Amino acid sequence: MKLLIIGSMAYDTVKTPFGERERVLGGSASYSSLAAAFFAPVALMAVVGEDFAAEDRELFRERGIDCSGLLTVPGGKTFHWQGEYGYDLNEAKTLRTDLNVLGTFDPEVPDALRDTPYLFLANLDPKAQMKVLDQVRLPRVVAADTMNYWIEHRREDLAELLPRIHILIINEAETRQLSGEYNLVKAGLKILEWGPKMLIVKRGEYGVLKITRDSVFATPAYPLDSVFDPTGAGDTFAGGFAGYLAQADDLSESTVRQAIVMGSVMASFNVEAFSLDRLKTLTKEEIGGRFRAFRELTDFS
Amino acid sequence: MKLLIIGSMAYDTVKTPFGERERVLGGSASYSSLAAAFFAPVALMAVVGEDFAAEDRELFRERGIDCSGLLTVPGGKTFHWQGEYGYDLNEAKTLRTDLNVLGTFDPEVPDALRDTPYLFLANLDPKAQMKVLDQVRLPRVVAADTMNYWIEHRREDLAELLPRIHILIINEAETRQLSGEYNLVKAGLKILEWGPKMLIVKRGEYGVLKITRDSVFATPAYPLDSVFDPTGAGDTFAGGFAGYLAQADDLSESTVRQAIVMGSVMASFNVEAFSLDRLKTLTKEEIGGRFRAFRELTDFS
Repeated sequence: MKLLIIGSMAYDTVKTPFGERERVLGGSASYSSLAAAFFAPVALMAVVGEDFAAEDRELFRERGIDCSGLLTVPGGKTFHWQGEYGYDLNEAKTLRTDLNVLGTFDPEVPDALRDTPYLFLANLDPKAQMKVLDQVRLPRVVAADTMNYWIEHRREDLAELLPRIHILIINEAETRQLSGEYNLVKAGLKILEWGPKMLIVKRGEYGVLKITRDSVFATPAYPLDSVFDPTGAGDTFAGGFAGYLAQADDLSESTVRQAIVMGSVMASFNVEAFSLDRLKTLTKEEIGGRFRAFRELTDFS
Repeated sequence: MKLLIIGSMAYDTVKTPFGERERVLGGSASYSSLAAAFFAPVALMAVVGEDFAAEDRELFRERGIDCSGLLTVPGGKTFHWQGEYGYDLNEAKTLRTDLNVLGTFDPEVPDALRDTPYLFLANLDPKAQMKVLDQVRLPRVVAADTMNYWIEHRREDLAELLPRIHILIINEAETRQLSGEYNLVKAGLKILEWGPKMLIVKRGEYGVLKITRDSVFATPAYPLDSVFDPTGAGDTFAGGFAGYLAQADDLSESTVRQAIVMGSVMASFNVEAFSLDRLKTLTKEEIGGRFRAFRELTDFS
């Protein structure tokens, strides 16, 4: 099944203990769509400025990603984020945010995409996420991400969004911030009362927790002996997860769990290099190999 | 197979966001031997003062734990630890440590215990741990724990201990501190070069990582909707792990992995109440039930 992803396209300036890169391709839509495209047909919605490089656009096209929803603002500049990580790669310190064209992004879903059955609303202003939802007819599955900024400053918009999505994908700190509960199981059950059927909690190097009313699934992350740049790990996870679900077109417990592990596999590759560099060279064989390695990693039969 | 555990017996004064308890039974030997005794015959070595309550002693005896190595110092006082936890229950803040009789503990292994095949050296001065090793003849498996204090102040003693043990069981911060490496996989491989065949990294609410030269095993922790007191979780884990191994008398990869999950199961019960209260009421049926729940929690077949 086809998956529509809406989110941000960015140029990132990133520094980690292992190096730095200036104005490299990033953004929630970039990472998630490139990851999802390994599994399902993907359409991408985002906004860029005139400075957006032809080769960056080509990257998505050559993966067969439908870019009819990629809007270019004449004379505009692409969203720019600058951040830094210490040895604890779990959290970025944001040094600078230039919203540029993202600040006035008012998403219009192209007619041809209004019946897309799978939807991933990557991190973006919840008002923009809802505007997309208003335009898509009867989506089968809607997953959404958000971030601390929206939880703090747009809580009412989020409260409107939550009953309209099936799956909320956020990190551990955001789960606590949104729910006001420290304990993650309690936090999860509280968030489920506000609408979503499923909460997926991203815990960085510690893995993922999935909470529904009936059950909890927990998986560690794939341990790596070198992590270069964690930027986009959460978006890559979500893209792999949503892409796998869309391909399977099945929300059974076992498929959802496999999708979570597949998302973790994709994220584990992504952090091995800066920007989208690792996703660019990644092959289906490597993905299959690491999925099997993940089974070996966690098996205790 | 019989398991000999040496460690501390303590009275703990503990405060968590959910309550507080004064001078309740604790110590690394208490938690680990009570947990291990669910699986294997256990002998306990530790030192207490004259203030050690008859009912606390009885607790071990009624579980069939061999207390011939439990030394009582006439006129002495039992080791006392006072600590506090915030909402982040992963780390305790130590407020006070009264070593008392533990300060001069010079372990003499009773003759009848000198051929015990399985040995767990719970957290204790590495010199005392080695003194036990000197007295036990050809142990089949030796596991040991340690803590930040010994890593900082007794590094040379630890360097002598490491080549003499098979399994080192420490937490994440201690793994980084001991190795000087932030990345856990790198840190683990470095520590293995110093002697142990296996490193088990306890990550609190995030689970456990096992690192050998050939492979890595990772498991999440069992998610709980209420954690009252994390004191002794690591010791309970280690006791359950070592007890399970001693019972199986087998160091195959699959048995070691099951032992890690069983240790995690035991720790998940222990944190549900203060002191050893939950271990006191725990049944084998409950343990079996949670082990099965752990499989369901992590299964993605």
